[in-house]
Amino acid sequence: MAVYTHIPMEEMAALVARFGVGTLCSAKGIAEGVENSNYLVETEQGRFILTVYEKRVDAGDLPFFMGLLDHLAEKGCPVPRTMHLAEGGSIADWNGKKIALIEFLPGVTVDKPTPAQAQATGAALGDLHRAVADFPGHRPNTLGLDGWVDLARQCGPALDDIRPGLAARVAEECAFLQAHWPHHLAKSVVHADLFPDNVLMLDNKVTGLIDFYFACEDVRAWDVAVTHSAWSFNADGTVYDAAVGDALLAGYQGSFGLSAEEAAAFPVLARGSCLRFLLTRAYDWINTPADALVTRKDPIAYLNRLEHYAAL
Amino acid sequence: MAVYTHIPMEEMAALVARFGVGTLCSAKGIAEGVENSNYLVETEQGRFILTVYEKRVDAGDLPFFMGLLDHLAEKGCPVPRTMHLAEGGSIADWNGKKIALIEFLPGVTVDKPTPAQAQATGAALGDLHRAVADFPGHRPNTLGLDGWVDLARQCGPALDDIRPGLAARVAEECAFLQAHWPHHLAKSVVHADLFPDNVLMLDNKVTGLIDFYFACEDVRAWDVAVTHSAWSFNADGTVYDAAVGDALLAGYQGSFGLSAEEAAAFPVLARGSCLRFLLTRAYDWINTPADALVTRKDPIAYLNRLEHYAAL
Repeated sequence: MAVYTHIPMEEMAALVARFGVGTLCSAKGIAEGVENSNYLVETEQGRFILTVYEKRVDAGDLPFFMGLLDHLAEKGCPVPRTMHLAEGGSIADWNGKKIALIEFLPGVTVDKPTPAQAQATGAALGDLHRAVADFPGHRPNTLGLDGWVDLARQCGPALDDIRPGLAARVAEECAFLQAHWPHHLAKSVVHADLFPDNVLMLDNKVTGLIDFYFACEDVRAWDVAVTHSAWSFNADGTVYDAAVGDALLAGYQGSFGLSAEEAAAFPVLARGSCLRFLLTRAYDWINTPADALVTRKDPIAYLNRLEHYAAL
Repeated sequence: MAVYTHIPMEEMAALVARFGVGTLCSAKGIAEGVENSNYLVETEQGRFILTVYEKRVDAGDLPFFMGLLDHLAEKGCPVPRTMHLAEGGSIADWNGKKIALIEFLPGVTVDKPTPAQAQATGAALGDLHRAVADFPGHRPNTLGLDGWVDLARQCGPALDDIRPGLAARVAEECAFLQAHWPHHLAKSVVHADLFPDNVLMLDNKVTGLIDFYFACEDVRAWDVAVTHSAWSFNADGTVYDAAVGDALLAGYQGSFGLSAEEAAAFPVLARGSCLRFLLTRAYDWINTPADALVTRKDPIAYLNRLEHYAAL
């Protein structure tokens, strides 16, 4: 939640001009995105988000992310269009960093989704899954099943410092998922991180799907499971809100839909989704000093969700 | 450079409605202001900055700051207007915190001011000094001469950890200013912190004077000296840019002007300005751990400026 890279405004004006969007009128660093620096920029031609990619984003992945946004916007999905440089491409180099300028979209993120908002989001996710069918880009999921097993190994016994017994529970879950993962289900490009803070809304309408920096190719219905686990619980994961969860699935069913096989595998996919966020949070927890100014997200909130799906 | 207070968007919408500015369309936390949390907010009726006042602002001062903005805006100065609550006043209570909503102004801050930009800023400061003549609010300067002497005592021998000999140099300067401070010069409400990052510009035009949270009553020409010391040097204070400094004074002279007495006292006023920022930076330096994520501003950059004015 910080701006890591300060761009002097004189250089910001020159950067924005390279994207052909007119004269700079305003630019404010925004406290969004844990990994990149973002500015809300206004020119005579409109408003944009300027992103400076910091170390955790692989520059080689940027053409995939930018191409995906352009493809989805072209198909009418509510995603930001990318601005293009006069010399071609949508990534500028500045002081050794990569920079993109994308459309600003209206809308606010919700903290406590209602069923109507979850239904609209499920529908938007289904529309996205239809729209990616002919997208030619490729990016493997580095945070898929193999990645979880690898993360669990890296966390090791330190998991028990978070909660006694967690290391054994994670090992057991890795073994379960390795035995039961539905590799045979249809794969496609997925968002893979469609939390409420990545969906902009006005009332019950989705005005923006954002933050595609985990987008990759994997089991398509897993994307629905990720979204379901992110939207349908209270913050600490102890209370499942069936009205929200059902509405999300109903919205998806109305726009794209799960096959009978996908629906049958849904609890397993959801367990995989919970394990993914449990492990990335646990890894950050173990590797972030307790007194750092960065807010650590609680891994146990995803253990609680995992046990909900495991009990189904 | 952070958002300390997270406002859920559902509550943000209700807050904004209390100010009577229509339906919330967008809100982004912005990485501005070291001491408060700020959101750039858009509604059907326009764009605004929503500020949550954190611990370092005295709530009792807020009516002075808000009243001053309204007074200056009414007089045509380029400052943000404050939005008013239906029940009166411009400060809302939310979860035990004070919140204000002020107009968003276009413009960007400059990192390397040109003479033309400095001249425009000097003129805007003069216009401000004319406009405050009939402002009825009162706020003493807690960071005036007595405040510096007090800060120097609080820093004590630790000043020598910043640079050997600094404690003696500061004591000497306090004694000099106590002996020579021009208490008899005209006083008025002053901005007291008109650094380049508190002036919004488009090309060479001032579109916004912002961040009035140090505004107070003190020697009026001291405000010109503060601005001069902030605008006319390179970052570490080792190089004085006479073209920028002269242009700033010429701009002020053309819109309000220094009297002969004020001009004669200017080097002393400027030394007082440099000592003020030297000491607040030194205090923060001494009291902020070296490994904190907060960027400490170098006190020596103001010692260098001080020696420039002391040599005049």
